[in-house]
Amino acid sequence: MRLSDFKVEQWMNDYENDAIYNMTDTCVKSLTLQELLDLEDFDFSNLILDYGQITGDVELKKEILSLYASGTIDNITTAQGCLQANELVMNTLLEKGDEVICVVPGYQQFVDIPKSIGCKVRLIELDEYDWQVGVKKFREMLNTSIKMIILNNPSNPTGTEYSNGFLNELIEVCKPYGTYILCDEVYRGLNQEVSISDIYENGISTSSLSKVFSLAGLRLGWIKANEDVIHQINVRRDYSMISTGPLVDKLGWIALKHKDELILRAKNIISTNKNIVREWLKENPRFECVLPSGGTVCFLKYGFDLKSETFAKLLLAEKGVFFVPGSCFDKKYYFRLGLAQDSKLFKAGLNELSNFVDEHLIS
Amino acid sequence: MRLSDFKVEQWMNDYENDAIYNMTDTCVKSLTLQELLDLEDFDFSNLILDYGQITGDVELKKEILSLYASGTIDNITTAQGCLQANELVMNTLLEKGDEVICVVPGYQQFVDIPKSIGCKVRLIELDEYDWQVGVKKFREMLNTSIKMIILNNPSNPTGTEYSNGFLNELIEVCKPYGTYILCDEVYRGLNQEVSISDIYENGISTSSLSKVFSLAGLRLGWIKANEDVIHQINVRRDYSMISTGPLVDKLGWIALKHKDELILRAKNIISTNKNIVREWLKENPRFECVLPSGGTVCFLKYGFDLKSETFAKLLLAEKGVFFVPGSCFDKKYYFRLGLAQDSKLFKAGLNELSNFVDEHLIS
Repeated sequence: MRLSDFKVEQWMNDYENDAIYNMTDTCVKSLTLQELLDLEDFDFSNLILDYGQITGDVELKKEILSLYASGTIDNITTAQGCLQANELVMNTLLEKGDEVICVVPGYQQFVDIPKSIGCKVRLIELDEYDWQVGVKKFREMLNTSIKMIILNNPSNPTGTEYSNGFLNELIEVCKPYGTYILCDEVYRGLNQEVSISDIYENGISTSSLSKVFSLAGLRLGWIKANEDVIHQINVRRDYSMISTGPLVDKLGWIALKHKDELILRAKNIISTNKNIVREWLKENPRFECVLPSGGTVCFLKYGFDLKSETFAKLLLAEKGVFFVPGSCFDKKYYFRLGLAQDSKLFKAGLNELSNFVDEHLIS
Repeated sequence: MRLSDFKVEQWMNDYENDAIYNMTDTCVKSLTLQELLDLEDFDFSNLILDYGQITGDVELKKEILSLYASGTIDNITTAQGCLQANELVMNTLLEKGDEVICVVPGYQQFVDIPKSIGCKVRLIELDEYDWQVGVKKFREMLNTSIKMIILNNPSNPTGTEYSNGFLNELIEVCKPYGTYILCDEVYRGLNQEVSISDIYENGISTSSLSKVFSLAGLRLGWIKANEDVIHQINVRRDYSMISTGPLVDKLGWIALKHKDELILRAKNIISTNKNIVREWLKENPRFECVLPSGGTVCFLKYGFDLKSETFAKLLLAEKGVFFVPGSCFDKKYYFRLGLAQDSKLFKAGLNELSNFVDEHLIS
């Protein structure tokens, strides 16, 4: 069960605290507790801090369900963040000898947890031109040994959004084999993206309050899937977490009751920041970027030969500008650019990046 | 990775909500949020709900450290409950082919997680007379293949407290092999029990706020171990949880800053309930029980031939008295009796148990 360093998380753990301009965070600018409590008049004083409802507060699960087009609350169980939701799905459904398909560049958890279980992981590369991929590559790889395809929609770090056409075509390919499609949809919500759990019986959606809802500090995630899968996960869950607890469940219920306000806030921040990037790219021809339709991140490409780790470390030390280097996703010439931070700091950080380039590189 | 039903947790999930008298809960009567907040004047309003400090708030870790006799905060990392702490330790240190020793009757997680990893699990039975065991049985079993011994001190469901003499002798046996001793110490704190992490380099202590601190709803646990083990666990942790979040960390810090008050409250409840049991046993000779020195639970034995599941279901349906049956721990003739509930309800529940026996069994 030994796992290697989770490169992007380790990088964040090691360097994030030194940042003046965090240009790489995937979470929309976090709310304070007071901002959350101000959304709803609710009396917490008599809340009993026992385990609460084991698979999640019923009122919370109703609000989670409202994010989807189908199902009942029996299609939902809660977890501590989307990360644990993903781990629970993989630990429950995958066994040694199974094969899975992952897409790269992507999130390391999807590759390394299956490997730690003893699965064979087959990789499909996104097209660097637009960070998309055709179903053809999946069709060629699919056979009865493939237990699960793992996607991230929209994705970290590329911002890829899989179209409805792509997903429907992929489902048709998977159906004869009953292949699970696990779709980490933690960046979903800004662009009316379809959920895999609404269009495919063996589609499993995971998400949380951390990214577009600006509440990573609650550590509240969930899984939506067919009832058989949810039952199996609930059995596994008793060995890992018991419950998410009544306090977090109630705070999560408030957040999702006011999802429209939170989503609007996130959209405004990201839209402003996207415009800042567009303008900045015009002035900085050494950089290019596929600006995504949804999600909170993209992959900023640079046109010179500094290794991404060296570049990121120098930039942080000298200007306080913090990026996760492409090397954390096994890609050269890239930084992960988060679009969800405070817009003033975001603009200032990009300017400092320009200054750094002017000062150190031959034009 | 398929795991069977976690019997005791499933039983609680299925039946607990129907109880009038919950006689089997392992947590000391839970605090309300207001009772917790009343302990300390702290302004939460500006708390930012981001991931917070990844391996746990430094002030929280200092308070956790105060529960132990040795170490620094670098010997500590946090988890979401003691259950996840245990899972992280086992998932990090155990690999397919390793052997572990577990003690029965005990907590199913310790047996089934290692099995799911592909470990061979060797069982040692506690002596039913006093729920103790000699080191001899471990010495006979120990060899280079045994990677870890897993104990629960004090234990669920038997209330076993391992003496300092036993632990020191066991450590001497383990040292030549470098065998890890994972000790789930979630019931520690009521009786000045020694921590394995204070007396053995390869001793790993796990605990949480759920049991003696009456705050299961915070889902806050931790691990104390040598720095190398903590480093390895922190690497694994990035795939499972990221952090416990700043809100829970601050609330946990308040609880532990006032640990003496919370422990005193727990001791008073349990001491009252133990006296109630002692009196009740005198009047009910069909029952017997080894009353434990620490912890919150014991194993109540009954002297008639009803299967424990049948007995528990009938008792719940007819009297609203809820027990976890011994069958959940693979033992006949037993109920798990929790000593930590509201004393009035506790006494009334035992009286209802007497009434049930009077009404249904031939004297």
